Amino acid sequence: MAILSALATEVFIPVAAVIGIAFAVVQWVIVSRVKLSPAAASAGGGKNGYGDYLIEEEEGLNDHNVVVKCAEIQKAISEGATSFLFTEYQYVGIFMSIFAVVIFLFLGSVEGFSTKSQPCTYSKDKYCKPALFTALFSTVSFLLGAITSLVSGFLGMKIATYANARTTLEARKGVGKAFITAFRSGAVMGFLLASSGLLVLYITINVFKLYYGDDWEGLFESITGYGLGGSSMALFGRVGGGIYTKAADVGADLVGKVERNIPEDDPRNPAVIADNVGDNVGDIAGMGSDLFGSYAESSCAALVVASISSFGIDHDFTGMCYPLLVSSVGIIVCLITTLFATDFFEVKAVKEIEPALKKQLIISTALMTVGIAVISWLALPAKFTIYNFGTQKDVSNWGLFFCVAIGLWAGLIIGFVTEYYTSNAYSPVQDVADSCRTGAATNVIFGLALGYKSVIIPIFAIAVSIYVSFSIAAMYGIAVAALGMLSTIATGLAIDAYGPISDNAGGIAEMAGMSHRIRERTDALDAAGNTTAAIGKGFAIGSAALVSLALFGAFVSRAGVTVVDVLSPKVFIGLIVGAMLPYWFSAMTMKSVGSAALKMVEEVRRQFNTIPGLMEGTAKPDYATCVKISTDASIKEMIPPGALVMLTPLIVGTLFGVETLSGVLAGALVSGVQIAISASNTGGAWDNAKKYIEAGASEHARTLGPKGSDCHKAAVIGDTIGDPLKDTSGPSLNILIKLMAVESLVFAPFFATQGGILFKYL
Amino acid sequence: MAILSALATEVFIPVAAVIGIAFAVVQWVIVSRVKLSPAAASAGGGKNGYGDYLIEEEEGLNDHNVVVKCAEIQKAISEGATSFLFTEYQYVGIFMSIFAVVIFLFLGSVEGFSTKSQPCTYSKDKYCKPALFTALFSTVSFLLGAITSLVSGFLGMKIATYANARTTLEARKGVGKAFITAFRSGAVMGFLLASSGLLVLYITINVFKLYYGDDWEGLFESITGYGLGGSSMALFGRVGGGIYTKAADVGADLVGKVERNIPEDDPRNPAVIADNVGDNVGDIAGMGSDLFGSYAESSCAALVVASISSFGIDHDFTGMCYPLLVSSVGIIVCLITTLFATDFFEVKAVKEIEPALKKQLIISTALMTVGIAVISWLALPAKFTIYNFGTQKDVSNWGLFFCVAIGLWAGLIIGFVTEYYTSNAYSPVQDVADSCRTGAATNVIFGLALGYKSVIIPIFAIAVSIYVSFSIAAMYGIAVAALGMLSTIATGLAIDAYGPISDNAGGIAEMAGMSHRIRERTDALDAAGNTTAAIGKGFAIGSAALVSLALFGAFVSRAGVTVVDVLSPKVFIGLIVGAMLPYWFSAMTMKSVGSAALKMVEEVRRQFNTIPGLMEGTAKPDYATCVKISTDASIKEMIPPGALVMLTPLIVGTLFGVETLSGVLAGALVSGVQIAISASNTGGAWDNAKKYIEAGASEHARTLGPKGSDCHKAAVIGDTIGDPLKDTSGPSLNILIKLMAVESLVFAPFFATQGGILFKYL
Repeated sequence: MAILSALATEVFIPVAAVIGIAFAVVQWVIVSRVKLSPAAASAGGGKNGYGDYLIEEEEGLNDHNVVVKCAEIQKAISEGATSFLFTEYQYVGIFMSIFAVVIFLFLGSVEGFSTKSQPCTYSKDKYCKPALFTALFSTVSFLLGAITSLVSGFLGMKIATYANARTTLEARKGVGKAFITAFRSGAVMGFLLASSGLLVLYITINVFKLYYGDDWEGLFESITGYGLGGSSMALFGRVGGGIYTKAADVGADLVGKVERNIPEDDPRNPAVIADNVGDNVGDIAGMGSDLFGSYAESSCAALVVASISSFGIDHDFTGMCYPLLVSSVGIIVCLITTLFATDFFEVKAVKEIEPALKKQLIISTALMTVGIAVISWLALPAKFTIYNFGTQKDVSNWGLFFCVAIGLWAGLIIGFVTEYYTSNAYSPVQDVADSCRTGAATNVIFGLALGYKSVIIPIFAIAVSIYVSFSIAAMYGIAVAALGMLSTIATGLAIDAYGPISDNAGGIAEMAGMSHRIRERTDALDAAGNTTAAIGKGFAIGSAALVSLALFGAFVSRAGVTVVDVLSPKVFIGLIVGAMLPYWFSAMTMKSVGSAALKMVEEVRRQFNTIPGLMEGTAKPDYATCVKISTDASIKEMIPPGALVMLTPLIVGTLFGVETLSGVLAGALVSGVQIAISASNTGGAWDNAKKYIEAGASEHARTLGPKGSDCHKAAVIGDTIGDPLKDTSGPSLNILIKLMAVESLVFAPFFATQGGILFKYL
Repeated sequence: MAILSALATEVFIPVAAVIGIAFAVVQWVIVSRVKLSPAAASAGGGKNGYGDYLIEEEEGLNDHNVVVKCAEIQKAISEGATSFLFTEYQYVGIFMSIFAVVIFLFLGSVEGFSTKSQPCTYSKDKYCKPALFTALFSTVSFLLGAITSLVSGFLGMKIATYANARTTLEARKGVGKAFITAFRSGAVMGFLLASSGLLVLYITINVFKLYYGDDWEGLFESITGYGLGGSSMALFGRVGGGIYTKAADVGADLVGKVERNIPEDDPRNPAVIADNVGDNVGDIAGMGSDLFGSYAESSCAALVVASISSFGIDHDFTGMCYPLLVSSVGIIVCLITTLFATDFFEVKAVKEIEPALKKQLIISTALMTVGIAVISWLALPAKFTIYNFGTQKDVSNWGLFFCVAIGLWAGLIIGFVTEYYTSNAYSPVQDVADSCRTGAATNVIFGLALGYKSVIIPIFAIAVSIYVSFSIAAMYGIAVAALGMLSTIATGLAIDAYGPISDNAGGIAEMAGMSHRIRERTDALDAAGNTTAAIGKGFAIGSAALVSLALFGAFVSRAGVTVVDVLSPKVFIGLIVGAMLPYWFSAMTMKSVGSAALKMVEEVRRQFNTIPGLMEGTAKPDYATCVKISTDASIKEMIPPGALVMLTPLIVGTLFGVETLSGVLAGALVSGVQIAISASNTGGAWDNAKKYIEAGASEHARTLGPKGSDCHKAAVIGDTIGDPLKDTSGPSLNILIKLMAVESLVFAPFFATQGGILFKYL
């Protein structure tokens, strides 16, 4: 058996989670030392701030007006975000309640709502708890997953809107101070989310175990609801938030930059607050719940396969908890990694920002490799068997280490490829910028081609990970590879959240009328954030692909399918229709952004035309109406794509059965991952091509610029087209493929027994 | 046995083919009556043309200058097209020779170049011809297929360039005359291609049979080379022609329409001849070889499956030839259908053009349904068995009729859905046009969303066809469904070729400085052609999906694979990498068009800047240099995507084996068909949104226009982006999925015996 005892496991996991939460709190306390109330700021300036005066780069530190303005703007953004999330949660709450009932009824009906114990599916000689109770516990874990995701997203948004103005104010003291404020705030979100996700899951398992006892099959079957809950919330977070943010962004840009020729984030633009709110609800809350969903799902996929493998059959608790142990180690590793950015080294100049963030990825990956090796040696028996579609496969602990590690490193490769294709330091984006010479059309053609091309290496990386980890440990290998990719989630999220916070900080600086020098600093933070955001999306998509495959594997295992034969027409039609779903879904989300943006444009134009003095800066625009338009549009528009994702598995499984559903899942996965990567990179490349021309940092870039030139106008068009691709339709596809898979997994017992009625009666 | 005797079959097929060719010749003679030499024209005007003077719409019939100018322009276009095709054929010739050797060596090596007869693969008790000779015959049929495709494409181009100026001249007499000239010319191409494809295939089978005798397994195995040959040429035709046409078109538009503000096809634009040449080499020669490839491949797929079914085992020649009989009936049906457009009814007004073309589709589909029923009753035994991955499946003749008919009708549905999404008579394109109000960015966002959405119904139509035809007659059912969709190919091609001919006719009218009224007539012809071109592409893609699946089925049958299990990692990595290939391929073709267009733009700008008097119309531009740029660029740029398609099956099959290759084929199919449909419809919609604004036919359209307004400029940007999508990358994907499948089929014996060396030695 493993070196780590069951008791040690029972202690280690919650301790790691609590350390993570404590670390988040510490970071939050440090960020909160930056005072936003002008009285305190002046007092601080008087009492302790003396040292600050010695900092060379200090600027306007005593300007109370600026602090007041920043606080005001922050308040407006925070209120807008809170109001949107609360509105969203009302609708989501209704959905959750209905869907909880659906889960209970569907799963309860598997054994006709009987309360008698039944023979287990996999260990026929034993008795397992009745399906009715598993239905109940699945419903509970679904709700727990949903609430955890919801709270995480909300807290992330709160922290981000708490930190944005503080980052702006710190930018007065220098780029290093601003960087560290933004990064610490990102870390608060990263650690809070990773740790609470782990802790809630761990507690749920232990509480459910009180009822299930030795019936681990049923126990981990019911735990899959946690993944479904997390992912359902992510759907609404990503889609609703994505539509919100891009409706505001596109609307603001179309009138502001293109028609009125005023800079981004100009306070005269009525949609500017909505745009900043959008960054928080889309990129922070949406991204957070997306990655939380991936994390919850890959854990659930691993646990459910493990429960019918030797760990489950032998009741080896430590081995069973291996996925959670990997995540626990990940929290510790990320904690150390964070110190490299916040304490061990200091960012002093603009050009050190991007390397500092990239170093985070490399350090966390390197440390985590060691961490995985140690935990694999401690927690796993030297040999064990894994369920492999009806047979058991022998696996060694080192083999499993290799599975986790390959996922981890594949994530890094995907991250770097994404950087190559979206950062304007390399030739792909520069070529796209260059194509703006001949106008917007060639810019779009080159950008689309770049996105298509950027798919190649990530897909090979994913394919190799799949082949290796599958060959070693079947579907369990894939699940732990996904976990490996997600094990450094705290660092990944910290870097990710850093981006929108910096973006907001820049917006606040502009709106508060702070100096050009400060705006330059926040712009530098933001530019680095753009690239890391693209990397984060690459990670999210790569892990989504592995997670969905793991869930797919768990689903077929649970549904008792042993072969998914492409040569069977039932499977093939599933495959081709599944491959179509990402297009259907993208059509909906793109169109939604377009329509919502049109409404926003009309409102912004109306305000410019009807409010006298707005263009001259003497009158204030009506920000609230724009916020309301974004809120209403995104809530309304998120329902059809949400319904498509949630209903497809139910309809296909019920009417056509598990074989066709397997085809649909595989088709959606292999097709969706490509569109997601290409959409996200195309958008990122256009954004940075525009920034490349604006910054004019090289001889080549200067021949294309300056701002306002024909080239730049063409680049702005590309950037605007890229907005919904990279922030709405692309990232939402992660959810599409994951959510359909986890939903199928949760409903697998129902589909396996009651599904396929159309083929049965035809 | 069947009612139709083997002898009757032997007679009926060549007779139908010869009738088709004769009909094409008759149409050609009628078109050739329009005289292009001014002397003859004036003579005609004097002698027989008297009646013409009575036609109300006559205009400038006696203007000799116009006739001379038209003849000149036509000559320039024809020479440019001929020169491009000859250059292309030189490169293609080299490729063909090399690939012929590869085929011979790979297939010859299957039994170690032994000249001894071997036990048959499927009838183990019989002896079949040695693999070496099958390798030889496969090579010969490959070359025959390639040459037939090449000759068909070339003749099509010749006819089109022969007809374009004649259509322009006829437009002086009225829209009806012009329509009928363009349509007859299209029919020449359609019937020539369908008939010669059938005839060559039929003769090849009969000649090969002299050697093979009773070994039908080997006979039809070697015949598959015909499909490969046809499709390889289609690859270069589509990709090379596609890059050519769009480099010229985009280049011409970017400088002409956007920068210089001169109308399309203005003779001052140096790229205008290249643009018109492009229509002929891309849309005529490329489309022709694409559909010829589909036709040859679906016939081969059906024949190879039939050869190992009861038809082949019982040596039932009539049943065996069922696919050819369906095509023969198709020629007769299309002949009757054509008469409806040329003789039974007459187009008198602009608004009758589009209905006349649509009626062609409906009439041919309706008549063909009857035709299929008759031939199924005559040629098939009431009951027979079909090979189904290791087992035999019982099928009735009515069942098979149903398979062919469902393919035929699915094609019609796809056609109409395509029309709905790309014609500006309906709301989708009008919405896209409307989104131009807020600029190019929203236009692109809405256009992309439209393309994604347009995938839904065609995919369901394809899925239902697959399910039904597969359930009835396994992979044979799918092959004949594809044949059903292609059975009205002569009419489809006539309608398709009509488009570019009208487009060219309009170009010639503009360049020859003919009156506004004539240009309006050719524009009306062209607008109808745009929609029918989109319908044709829909057909081509839909049939390509069915054909590839049929080829895929034939491949797995030939390779002895009985299960393609998605749950096997070998298959799954194939699936995900296969789904990536269309992106890789599109990245190459889009980038190629972009780069070639940039070169064209530079040249056009150079000429405008350096040739004095060009803009004023007093100096002539240097058309030849632009033609050369397009030729050189397309030849150079077609090699990498060509290599990707041709090498992938060879590399995957050799290194990873038939299972992974099956995955790659399935992945490429389900992913490629979606991109192809969405790309082609997005492009079509943008094109017609622009035309909608230009035409200003409704109140709504007039609020967006006129030409030159901001809305119109935004629409032009969309149109330019759509060009490579709809005419290069989108349609080329048809070839990608078909060609990889047919290549795998041809090399199946090699892969099955020698393939997968990487997995063997790892």
